[in-house]
Amino acid sequence: MQIEGRNQVRQAIDSGLTINKIMIDSNYSHRKDEIVFFARKKRIRIDFVPKQALDRKSTTSHHQGYIADAVDFKYTDLEELLNDKSEKPLYVLLDGIEDPHNFGAIIRSCECAGVNGIIIPKNRACLVNDTVVRTSTGAISNMKIALVTNLKEAINELKNKNIWVYAAETGGENIYQKNLNQPIAIIIGSEGKGVKKSIIDNCDGVISLPLKGKVNSLNASVACGIVIFEILRQRG
Amino acid sequence: MQIEGRNQVRQAIDSGLTINKIMIDSNYSHRKDEIVFFARKKRIRIDFVPKQALDRKSTTSHHQGYIADAVDFKYTDLEELLNDKSEKPLYVLLDGIEDPHNFGAIIRSCECAGVNGIIIPKNRACLVNDTVVRTSTGAISNMKIALVTNLKEAINELKNKNIWVYAAETGGENIYQKNLNQPIAIIIGSEGKGVKKSIIDNCDGVISLPLKGKVNSLNASVACGIVIFEILRQRG
Repeated sequence: MQIEGRNQVRQAIDSGLTINKIMIDSNYSHRKDEIVFFARKKRIRIDFVPKQALDRKSTTSHHQGYIADAVDFKYTDLEELLNDKSEKPLYVLLDGIEDPHNFGAIIRSCECAGVNGIIIPKNRACLVNDTVVRTSTGAISNMKIALVTNLKEAINELKNKNIWVYAAETGGENIYQKNLNQPIAIIIGSEGKGVKKSIIDNCDGVISLPLKGKVNSLNASVACGIVIFEILRQRG
Repeated sequence: MQIEGRNQVRQAIDSGLTINKIMIDSNYSHRKDEIVFFARKKRIRIDFVPKQALDRKSTTSHHQGYIADAVDFKYTDLEELLNDKSEKPLYVLLDGIEDPHNFGAIIRSCECAGVNGIIIPKNRACLVNDTVVRTSTGAISNMKIALVTNLKEAINELKNKNIWVYAAETGGENIYQKNLNQPIAIIIGSEGKGVKKSIIDNCDGVISLPLKGKVNSLNASVACGIVIFEILRQRG
């Protein structure tokens, strides 16, 4: 994973990503540089290179003199994810989240709530990239994420493990009247379209937040946060 | 408020903003254009103008042939906001939210939860701009927002109205053990720094979500959503 730009590289150092090395424009080598300071503190290799080398390496043309080379995020096998020995595991499935800021915020919420793992589809969804890593503010290094080809098959595997699978969508059972004190997987739909009907048909049910406004839809990462914290509350 | 760019103008039409007119590059006048279609449907004036006129008008240099002129968002007076006759009003104060996406998502959550108004400081905070309007997905047109010079004075006015003012921060009372079934104002802190100590000192207390992870901090808009929906749940 390549991370470009001053701020981006600065944040990557704190993000929990493993960084192989940071390339910095050699014209900056005399500067008192925060990035150099924190990279050295974390024993990350720094190469001062000619600007032209950065220009050649850059894929965004906005490197601003800084490019970091980080280890790609390592996804977990679904099987390993589901082998969690928690008494009442809680999983979050994302049905096509496309905005990296939403994905990052969801990872952060899941980590804060002690969620046992996140499951995302390989296609038509945001995968872990540098924006996701940054938005998760380090949470990603404590969170297991499985990448699956087929979300429906993953749902069946969850059911086989006696985990209840609920879609968080409008028009379902009031979440506050539903007993969520059991092994559960929650499906959060995409920003535009919510949870796909074919996925809902495969679930054990639909749970909804009672909404009072006219807009009637929450941001995906906000909805996810409210739902998983309600589960946590019920579990005491 | 000037909105530039194809997507931005397209979304502004649906956002709830009042648009005075849309200027479109006259070279596009022969196109079958979604923007023209929806603007005409909403009886918004369209001017086809030479590209040079758009270039001159543009402040972002990314107009892509589309610039909309929208009415600036109208803030509500704090006094009017606090004159709400609800039996148990709920207000949200933002102590320096800087990210327009967070601010927009918060407006959306507040609208969905039936919050009576949002109070933001004039300085060092994100004001309502076109990104906020867009991210709120129309919620902003149903939400009263007051802009105040001094957040502490606003807190005092809330207290004078017998509204309990709580900061949502780490290290406070567990939100699930706190009785929130009363007139309440919640303060959400900024992305980086949380609620300022001087503001906390002025509050009636601090309420916290019990967190289980290592990261120990939620995205500001997610935290806001969880807190206001817990208040809603308690109020039944």
